[in-house]
Amino acid sequence: MEYRKLKDQDEDGNSAADDIENLRGKPLSVAASLGGGAVDRTKWKRKSMVTLALTVLTSSQAILIVWSKRAGKYEYSVTTANFSVEALKCALSLVALARIWNNEGVTEDNRLSTTMDEVIVYPIPAALYLVKNLLQYYIFAYVDAPGYQILKNLNIISTGVLYRIILKRKLSEIQWAAFIILCAGCTTAQLNPSSDHVLQTPLQGWVMAIVMALLSGFAGVYTEAIIKRRPSRNINVQNFWLYVFGMVFNAAAIVIQDFDAVVNKGFFHGYSFITVLMILNHALSGIAVSMVMKYADNIVKVYSTSVAMLLTAVVSVFLFGFHLSLAFFLGSTVVSVSVYLHSIGKVR
Amino acid sequence: MEYRKLKDQDEDGNSAADDIENLRGKPLSVAASLGGGAVDRTKWKRKSMVTLALTVLTSSQAILIVWSKRAGKYEYSVTTANFSVEALKCALSLVALARIWNNEGVTEDNRLSTTMDEVIVYPIPAALYLVKNLLQYYIFAYVDAPGYQILKNLNIISTGVLYRIILKRKLSEIQWAAFIILCAGCTTAQLNPSSDHVLQTPLQGWVMAIVMALLSGFAGVYTEAIIKRRPSRNINVQNFWLYVFGMVFNAAAIVIQDFDAVVNKGFFHGYSFITVLMILNHALSGIAVSMVMKYADNIVKVYSTSVAMLLTAVVSVFLFGFHLSLAFFLGSTVVSVSVYLHSIGKVR
Repeated sequence: MEYRKLKDQDEDGNSAADDIENLRGKPLSVAASLGGGAVDRTKWKRKSMVTLALTVLTSSQAILIVWSKRAGKYEYSVTTANFSVEALKCALSLVALARIWNNEGVTEDNRLSTTMDEVIVYPIPAALYLVKNLLQYYIFAYVDAPGYQILKNLNIISTGVLYRIILKRKLSEIQWAAFIILCAGCTTAQLNPSSDHVLQTPLQGWVMAIVMALLSGFAGVYTEAIIKRRPSRNINVQNFWLYVFGMVFNAAAIVIQDFDAVVNKGFFHGYSFITVLMILNHALSGIAVSMVMKYADNIVKVYSTSVAMLLTAVVSVFLFGFHLSLAFFLGSTVVSVSVYLHSIGKVR
Repeated sequence: MEYRKLKDQDEDGNSAADDIENLRGKPLSVAASLGGGAVDRTKWKRKSMVTLALTVLTSSQAILIVWSKRAGKYEYSVTTANFSVEALKCALSLVALARIWNNEGVTEDNRLSTTMDEVIVYPIPAALYLVKNLLQYYIFAYVDAPGYQILKNLNIISTGVLYRIILKRKLSEIQWAAFIILCAGCTTAQLNPSSDHVLQTPLQGWVMAIVMALLSGFAGVYTEAIIKRRPSRNINVQNFWLYVFGMVFNAAAIVIQDFDAVVNKGFFHGYSFITVLMILNHALSGIAVSMVMKYADNIVKVYSTSVAMLLTAVVSVFLFGFHLSLAFFLGSTVVSVSVYLHSIGKVR
């Protein structure tokens, strides 16, 4: 399996040795030359910034979705929108790289050209998401949409378990406890009077939900493994290659699902101002996810999107006059305590 | 205030010195003579036993209530049943004492006679509960019965806060976090489709609910203070005096509320087999609560009754064909994690 290859390489230390070599050969950054304390602070600041960006972008994403639903049904092809998101992310990565090349010149770490050995793992996450999205069509035979929303919280558990198994990163006892109540708290916050239907899900539905959670968790953890494999490699190059394969897989999805519509009505048929906003938001959130993988990890990503879910609900009260349920308050309390426990429960 | 007096006495150390004196004067128990480890183990065993007893008794209590409701409406006077519970607890304490007097003889710690200074604080918990029960009639003007069940979980928070303030006992950060999610988890487990009504509770209802939670928490914490004030004092003597005042206050309640019914139809009118079982169960639970206060504390009591609530629901599935909701599973998960966090989060 691919991730095994990746891990073995990590273990024999080749890539790490490469990185140290690269660090020696280039001028150290200001932060690094200021000593450990300043480096830690810079790292912490960068980690906080990307986490905050992801939280804000994810919560505004959900708000845009509600807004677009209010505006009427989707007139555009979802597949072309997904392709546009990947293309925009690719373009943004190239723009960022062009600026870096201008300022720092082309180095081993920021050049776009790559080796087969480096690039071969990049299509995997996109392929995993594609399989997961295909399964999504079949699970609705067993579960309704609100039930699916509830079952999606299994992602939290699968991410934690795969993070432990594949990345071999440790969570403390307290952090595991925090992670379990994060899952329970998020689900509680989403409860509505019809949520109990999910308990009647047949076995096939449960199996598919668990497989989907594993695929999604695996894709996330695998992306982190790819990005962290060479820490000194510029994130924009890593993103570029991730998104190139995202474009390829989404192009295939257009051909399979929406070929006729695109040929007859054009690629951008049905796009409105809000569609463009959503594409922009998805692109920026996607980049924020990559940044979180680079400078933080999948656990931080899960916390960030969970808190975003709560923020969305609170903002929706003001924007759309939503009512918050008692379950939402209880779930939010549990999620908040989980965030607190995660932060005080660090492995020393 | 009474509790201040109590605390001052603790602080000047008289009672503790008395107790050490008493320990010296009498034959040491087997456990004590085996050294610290064995004493700790005996203490831990006793604490576990009383906690387990309280959990089992509390959960069977709730099951008896469901059973009696199915059997039809209450035919007996609730006030006479409450009085019977206090009388039975009193009698059981005396029986236990008689056995102890027989085996060990009468000592300073197990003699029934008392001083004004010792006994003067004993009516306070009973009086506090009486005030709380009176308020209960008024709160239903603002909240319905299921809403009141939800609001009763405020007791958990009030007990934690008063335990900290009055008994000056410390909980670690993790234990506080655990206590907050215990409250959220218990409430989540009790959610039903109409629970959201509680959010429409008017301000007066909230104020009354908070006052009732404080009264209930204060009564619990105060009872612990009374019982722990003289650790060597035999628990059965302490219980005897607590229950004597319980009988007095409940006798007053009979006269006020059910005087006519008792005079016309007799004290035990409407008692059935299940009524007798409930009285027996309440009496034993009451004694278990006292034991938990003596050998553990209010925090353990709250955990014990919370776990009992979950046990009741699970047992009801088998006994009465109840259905468990998704909220129940989520709440139970959170409560279980809370129990785990409380146990690993001990202040060192």
